[in-house]
Amino acid sequence: MQRTGLLIILSSPSGAGKSTLARRLMAWDPTMKFSVSATTRPPRPGEVDGREYFFRSREEFLAMVRAGEMLEHAEVFGNLYGTPKAPVEEAMREGRDTLFDIDWQGGQQIRNSVLGKNVVSIFILPPSIAELERRLRTRGQDPEEVIQARMAKSEAEISHWAEYDYVLINDDLDRTEDDLKTIIRAERMRRERLPGLSEFVRSLNKEFESR
Amino acid sequence: MQRTGLLIILSSPSGAGKSTLARRLMAWDPTMKFSVSATTRPPRPGEVDGREYFFRSREEFLAMVRAGEMLEHAEVFGNLYGTPKAPVEEAMREGRDTLFDIDWQGGQQIRNSVLGKNVVSIFILPPSIAELERRLRTRGQDPEEVIQARMAKSEAEISHWAEYDYVLINDDLDRTEDDLKTIIRAERMRRERLPGLSEFVRSLNKEFESR
Repeated sequence: MQRTGLLIILSSPSGAGKSTLARRLMAWDPTMKFSVSATTRPPRPGEVDGREYFFRSREEFLAMVRAGEMLEHAEVFGNLYGTPKAPVEEAMREGRDTLFDIDWQGGQQIRNSVLGKNVVSIFILPPSIAELERRLRTRGQDPEEVIQARMAKSEAEISHWAEYDYVLINDDLDRTEDDLKTIIRAERMRRERLPGLSEFVRSLNKEFESR
Repeated sequence: MQRTGLLIILSSPSGAGKSTLARRLMAWDPTMKFSVSATTRPPRPGEVDGREYFFRSREEFLAMVRAGEMLEHAEVFGNLYGTPKAPVEEAMREGRDTLFDIDWQGGQQIRNSVLGKNVVSIFILPPSIAELERRLRTRGQDPEEVIQARMAKSEAEISHWAEYDYVLINDDLDRTEDDLKTIIRAERMRRERLPGLSEFVRSLNKEFESR
């Protein structure tokens, strides 16, 4: 049955397990497309254009915005970030889902964009703030001020939990992964995402007529 | 996590497998409540009050309607049929889902009732009309005019497929059962059906404050 690809938005404070979950979902369904953002910030060592980000000059970026080629964009600490529309539309037409690892601002804009009808948005919460901080501290050698800045950003991020279709508390990665798959499987089955249904019902009606 | 019970509406033409699927869902989750309709038609041999239907006099039935105790009701071939509201509201409060085996008219009314926000509606289609007719003919010794009347009713029923949240083509009972469970599991996880989430996020905010 022909289906329209979903726009799956995953948001969470950093340390809640979102990146691990996104990686697992991509492994579960390799036809899923990971949305790569465009940015005007310079690449860091090891970052590859088109993999971590599409690295663009400010002029190129703004030209894309003016041409309506960005699904959403925002300025953060003087750098522009945005989601190119074309790869998402292409995936949708091919019946492939696109996975977005973005914050509440990007989520809001995509939900309210022309493609909003196909959005499924999921917010991942940590089981506790103590656990969130523990995960942030054990995963790197970040200086204290970076940790504190991340925690402040987490508080702001969490304040937007009620804008999402689903909110999962990640106290067990396997269970949360399972819940995510259940949600995606169900959302793919929604009537409005299966344009092939109209044709199928037409074939049933023809059968009625020829009885 | 505290959750609000769903109102799960299953509709389909007769012969599409709906009753078998409803029975399997009840076996899968015994906490689920099957909605028993009230009717003014007299009981048939073997039917038990409160099991197949709540059998009520016309006066009793209309008194319930006037008192706002019916979630929906309709008159079919001179008999009144309706869904008592109280058992559904009780199940919702207890976090138990109610399963409705009703036609498009009942589905429409319940979706548009005060409890509509908690409705998940699923339409089951047969793989073909030939198969639907074959199932109708093999399951009983119904006279030809009954078969023809059912087929006419099926055509009218199918014309309402596009009012449902999900539409499943039942060409394999096990697979359709599995899809139904996936849909129910996912719908239970929707944010607005988990009133306990607010309290949980409050506890996270308190943790932020006391850092």
